[in-house]
Amino acid sequence: MVLKSVGIVGLGLMGGSLGLSLRHFLPKAKFIGYDHNKTHTKDAISLKLVDRITTNLDDIFECELIILAIPVDGIIDILKNIKSIGQNCTIIDLGSTKKQICESIPENIRKNFVATHPMTGTEKHGPTAAFDGLYKNKTVVLCDVEQSGKIQLELVEQIYKNLEMNIIYMDSNSHDKHAAFISHMPHAISYALANSVMKQEDPKSIIALAGGGFRDMSRIAKSSPVMWESIFKQNKTNVLESIKYFIKELEIFEELLENEDYDGLRVWMSDANKIHDIL
Amino acid sequence: MVLKSVGIVGLGLMGGSLGLSLRHFLPKAKFIGYDHNKTHTKDAISLKLVDRITTNLDDIFECELIILAIPVDGIIDILKNIKSIGQNCTIIDLGSTKKQICESIPENIRKNFVATHPMTGTEKHGPTAAFDGLYKNKTVVLCDVEQSGKIQLELVEQIYKNLEMNIIYMDSNSHDKHAAFISHMPHAISYALANSVMKQEDPKSIIALAGGGFRDMSRIAKSSPVMWESIFKQNKTNVLESIKYFIKELEIFEELLENEDYDGLRVWMSDANKIHDIL
Repeated sequence: MVLKSVGIVGLGLMGGSLGLSLRHFLPKAKFIGYDHNKTHTKDAISLKLVDRITTNLDDIFECELIILAIPVDGIIDILKNIKSIGQNCTIIDLGSTKKQICESIPENIRKNFVATHPMTGTEKHGPTAAFDGLYKNKTVVLCDVEQSGKIQLELVEQIYKNLEMNIIYMDSNSHDKHAAFISHMPHAISYALANSVMKQEDPKSIIALAGGGFRDMSRIAKSSPVMWESIFKQNKTNVLESIKYFIKELEIFEELLENEDYDGLRVWMSDANKIHDIL
Repeated sequence: MVLKSVGIVGLGLMGGSLGLSLRHFLPKAKFIGYDHNKTHTKDAISLKLVDRITTNLDDIFECELIILAIPVDGIIDILKNIKSIGQNCTIIDLGSTKKQICESIPENIRKNFVATHPMTGTEKHGPTAAFDGLYKNKTVVLCDVEQSGKIQLELVEQIYKNLEMNIIYMDSNSHDKHAAFISHMPHAISYALANSVMKQEDPKSIIALAGGGFRDMSRIAKSSPVMWESIFKQNKTNVLESIKYFIKELEIFEELLENEDYDGLRVWMSDANKIHDIL
């Protein structure tokens, strides 16, 4: 694979880690970074996530590969404001929602764009959270690929294969429904769990007892509110619907326990156990 | 520390791991194991969790240190049926609830008993899940210690210190309230999350997208239904109350999103972020 220039918009965990990982098989490419946050650009240079920083998005638009690694609202803003890019230029985003993004791409650059969602991340953010290996052996969803150009799609597939990722194809509508259950709702739950403990009289005494279970359940409650605001906004309907299903399950639990139906409770828990046969 | 005999009732993850860990500083003690499950007793011997197996609980009651590492209902049954033990004998349990257990100890052996809850575990169970190091650097709660005998309490404190555990003291009532929030409710949430996904039309397509967040959130949904049935049973009131608080938070999230109050949503998420300042 030969690419001369890669432009990364957003030098946080996702964009920064991708910069680090791509260098392994794009040793000759120049990596140019763009980020509103000046501390981030400084950190990105000192951590060698990119080769140089630009404050002019036009420098990014001149790159052969453009990576949009910013909150999903920002992705839509940038896509709408692209004035001119090369015919063979490839643009990808790494956003957690796909439908509104796919719907908002201007027609003249539709073939240049490949919508992707790497199912990876940590609760940390910013360039200092970036690490080589974030993408390895993880799943990435490619959406509405029939609308992308052939060379663009092949390049993106090659990139994710080189990163040793498992590629799944899906229409953006199904993606957003599935992502609500597997990622967006779990984040809402984790935030709610953290808040329910924090609002007790003496949260410190409760948290002093935290073991691995609670740590795991509350880990993603550390996620960035700015990033998650725009995910929840773009996937509002699916998120609210998935939460209805979840609350229904929790009400089943409450009813079984309230009625002391312990046989039923055991069956309900055994049903939940089965997720690990396919997870 | 010198102990000649340790009896462990229940040779699963908790009891088995304790057997392994105690040997480091009790090299001369004989470890005797008891378990209803014959596969467990075989495994426990081949994994050297204990030195020998007995099918007679009286052999356990002759030990200097008795460890009850079985579901919390079973702990109460055993405590009620202890006929005679030595005056200096020490009995501990490792159960996740404490109030009903503390209330059910017969008066004649109250001083022999120290109620403990090590805040550790994994979603796995059985002797094959046991490992040396499960207890290291974890927190253990000792409850109602003023009712335990002096030598018994000192022995138990010494044991947990040797295991490099952080000891917290609490009355059993407060323990059960706190444990509901930090452990029991999170388990109910994890089971409910797993079930809400499993009951969708095509759970496999959803689960194919699972990243680290969902894996963490659903990990404890693999926990043993038999064990958790009796925990939920014994801590019913506190568990149901904590779930009310949690659902209230989730309803706040729903309302903010429904009303597109994104400023409010960001504040609510930032509040949740704060748990990690004390966790």
